[in-house]
Amino acid sequence: MGKGVICLYGNFSGDIMNFRMAQTLAEADGIQVTEVIARDDIASAPKENIQNRRAVAGEVIMWKVGGAAAQEGMSLNKVKEVAERAINNTRSFGVGTYPCIIPATGKPSFKLEEDEMEIGIGHHGEPGIRKEKMKSADETTTMLMDAILEDLPFKNGDKVSVLINGLGATPFQELFIINRKVSEILEKYKIKKIITYVGEYFTSLEMAGFSITLTKVDDEIARLILAKADSPMFKQFDLNK
Amino acid sequence: MGKGVICLYGNFSGDIMNFRMAQTLAEADGIQVTEVIARDDIASAPKENIQNRRAVAGEVIMWKVGGAAAQEGMSLNKVKEVAERAINNTRSFGVGTYPCIIPATGKPSFKLEEDEMEIGIGHHGEPGIRKEKMKSADETTTMLMDAILEDLPFKNGDKVSVLINGLGATPFQELFIINRKVSEILEKYKIKKIITYVGEYFTSLEMAGFSITLTKVDDEIARLILAKADSPMFKQFDLNK
Repeated sequence: MGKGVICLYGNFSGDIMNFRMAQTLAEADGIQVTEVIARDDIASAPKENIQNRRAVAGEVIMWKVGGAAAQEGMSLNKVKEVAERAINNTRSFGVGTYPCIIPATGKPSFKLEEDEMEIGIGHHGEPGIRKEKMKSADETTTMLMDAILEDLPFKNGDKVSVLINGLGATPFQELFIINRKVSEILEKYKIKKIITYVGEYFTSLEMAGFSITLTKVDDEIARLILAKADSPMFKQFDLNK
Repeated sequence: MGKGVICLYGNFSGDIMNFRMAQTLAEADGIQVTEVIARDDIASAPKENIQNRRAVAGEVIMWKVGGAAAQEGMSLNKVKEVAERAINNTRSFGVGTYPCIIPATGKPSFKLEEDEMEIGIGHHGEPGIRKEKMKSADETTTMLMDAILEDLPFKNGDKVSVLINGLGATPFQELFIINRKVSEILEKYKIKKIITYVGEYFTSLEMAGFSITLTKVDDEIARLILAKADSPMFKQFDLNK
């Protein structure tokens, strides 16, 4: 069996261009290369143009599933299959309450008034799809969850993993307030959480705000998400235990 | 042997008052109670009034040492002795570049112009000892390190643990820029790092800024700092490996 590489990345034109160049070079060296491209950000394009959607924090779940699958010794094709299944059943949506400043540009990536928030921000500091008056954490969470649940859609009886992701400058205490409302909404729809991650998993420098990511899981995806993991970037931790 | 409790906390009057009340109640129940109080913030009082200094991120190192000592099965008095030795050999100093808003007050805990930074901030959002014009990361790090090294003092040949702590809204990339300069300065003085922590270990909500903490270690303290640890708040991770 030859060497094989799988690249799990997001739908951004620069990323795709660089991946394809690396793929060409690697294949010339006899290395089998495959990919999964994440498109979990529901704000970035309507569902009928799902191929145009960009990736946000759902990538973390794709990496977790792909990593656990590789750790179990699955074949490259099987790793690709489970990572793809995980990300295709993942939906994310986020809001920014304060922009980040990308060092090379030296100015905020979008402008917000004190009482505004930016809906549907991207994780490289990209502006979102619209501005809204600042709402309470519960109202904002409900708005995001309504859109996420409708998009896949997630239904009564589904099992999901939950990721409440801070963008860089949102205190953990506030992420837990979001998590409380997410839990209430999931309970209302009788959707069962298999695990909940709350933290800074996918940040945009010092941007303030958060995103919510839900992944609908079957038994295999659930096992791979729940598998132990211990790396500098990601350590398995289950709040429900 | 009866039950025993040790409380490792910082020099803040409210904390002390609450500890002493809890101690009285616990001792009435026959539980032996002891304490170590951290005073690692060199900005909070001059060295001749070291008893008045408050605690900042150095507490994390005190907890790490005390926790590892208890894990090794040391007696309560020995745990107290090593935790005290660790914190008494610890010095911290921090700067804020953007204040936090404590939810109950609803307004920033201090005011800063765009081009200013607050020197010597406390970790509950307290203002520092003075404002200065914003300097480069290297210049700021050098200023903090000069003061820290002189205070203990740390000397040629010493071994230290290093903690570069983000206050809540400083990107990790920037903390690593600080860490580079800290490493250069330690190398210049031939002070050897046994471990380096870079991350958000001791935050002030969404305050931007950072603190540097050095702990001079002997063989025993080094062993306890390097011991494995895995808790929701703290997971052992060594950048030097």
